Amino acid sequence: MKANTKPTLSDLEKKIIKFRDDRNWKQFHNPKDLALSLNLESAEVLEHFQWKNNKELEEYVEKNKDVIGQEIVDVIYYCLLLSHEINVDINKAFIQKMKLNNKKYPVKKAKNNHKKYTELS
Amino acid sequence: MKANTKPTLSDLEKKIIKFRDDRNWKQFHNPKDLALSLNLESAEVLEHFQWKNNKELEEYVEKNKDVIGQEIVDVIYYCLLLSHEINVDINKAFIQKMKLNNKKYPVKKAKNNHKKYTELS
Amino acid sequence: MKANTKPTLSDLEKKIIKFRDDRNWKQFHNPKDLALSLNLESAEVLEHFQWKNNKELEEYVEKNKDVIGQEIVDVIYYCLLLSHEINVDINKAFIQKMKLNNKKYPVKKAKNNHKKYTELS
Amino acid sequence: MKANTKPTLSDLEKKIIKFRDDRNWKQFHNPKDLALSLNLESAEVLEHFQWKNNKELEEYVEKNKDVIGQEIVDVIYYCLLLSHEINVDINKAFIQKMKLNNKKYPVKKAKNNHKKYTELS
Repeated sequence: MKANTKPTLSDLEKKIIKFRDDRNWKQFHNPKDLALSLNLESAEVLEHFQWKNNKELEEYVEKNKDVIGQEIVDVIYYCLLLSHEINVDINKAFIQKMKLNNKKYPVKKAKNNHKKYTELS
Repeated sequence: MKANTKPTLSDLEKKIIKFRDDRNWKQFHNPKDLALSLNLESAEVLEHFQWKNNKELEEYVEKNKDVIGQEIVDVIYYCLLLSHEINVDINKAFIQKMKLNNKKYPVKKAKNNHKKYTELS
Repeated sequence: MKANTKPTLSDLEKKIIKFRDDRNWKQFHNPKDLALSLNLESAEVLEHFQWKNNKELEEYVEKNKDVIGQEIVDVIYYCLLLSHEINVDINKAFIQKMKLNNKKYPVKKAKNNHKKYTELS
Repeated sequence: MKANTKPTLSDLEKKIIKFRDDRNWKQFHNPKDLALSLNLESAEVLEHFQWKNNKELEEYVEKNKDVIGQEIVDVIYYCLLLSHEINVDINKAFIQKMKLNNKKYPVKKAKNNHKKYTELS
């Protein structure tokens, strides 16, 4: 990709797969362990939000947003590795899911309302 | 974005924010609850990989990859919402993290070796 | 155990193992899947605390404490199954861990202070 | 409790609450953060089971069972703190849950079968 264009999800996926294949790590990457890693990385994101009141949290996030951002990237990293491993086209899946969300949460019913779709009346 | 081009992370982020703002949901979206949701969605991905031996797992994933794919999208959805809320440029963060990973796991040391970087000798 | 005495962790462990063995489920219970279930059940506890402000949360917990209590039991259930599977004496482990915590967080330093022990000065 | 008797869950709860109150930590312990910690500690247990094949896992667990045991204790610690905070009698909850499990998974149907109760026929 060119330096001045933003990468697509597919570009990122290719970068990640190249990183992995350069290290010959595919041998370790079964889908179950990738799903497990996805959870461990998500927990690392969550850890930043613990034991702080609202004001402390705001200051903490402002100061540490680079670190938190990189932990979010770790989560995306495993999302892309996992979807690659199980042959999911993540772009297609994304579009399908957003369509589904639009049906589950129609603007008219869901506006200002954060109930689960099964509880929306 | 055009129908025939692949979306960037920024495109997806815009779609997600529009979905949210159409429903006026920003009022519910503090970073802590987004990080919490990220973990719950990751757990939903993981649930698919439970109580199955290797052969059962392979068949199960093949049959259910659309559903699993959409649950992976839910994880990416919260990654993008959270990074948006805390003003992280996720594209930049991605590039920085991959650079860091390259340093932590140099091909020469990490090839065929899945130890944590702190244990690589 | 007698009806009018409180159960020990070992009593609970025995009850759980009997429940399992009556169903012949040991064949499914490898330590990795038990650790995985532990995480899924913990996520189910966490789900109750999402998308609610402090006041809403207080009312919600008061109304739903039986359900939340039973989900906490599910977590303890997998703690005991897992420790049984890997031959850990959970009573001993408990006493050792509390001793360790007392060392890591001496009252004098840790009073009114919720920093991690590595950051306590 | 006497040195030579096994502690009940209530004994452990009292020990934990005393540990906390000696440090005046109740001020930090809202139920949401306790549920969050429960998830982080569960993730630390899970981390031990990553990236290892069956044989490696068996050896690893044998060597590290003291450490894993103590991380399981951390999970139980937060289970007891949380149930204490929301006024759940964990002994009662345990007995209720086991009764419920007996109904959901009758021996006749569940023997040798690890399907979810909603899928048992």
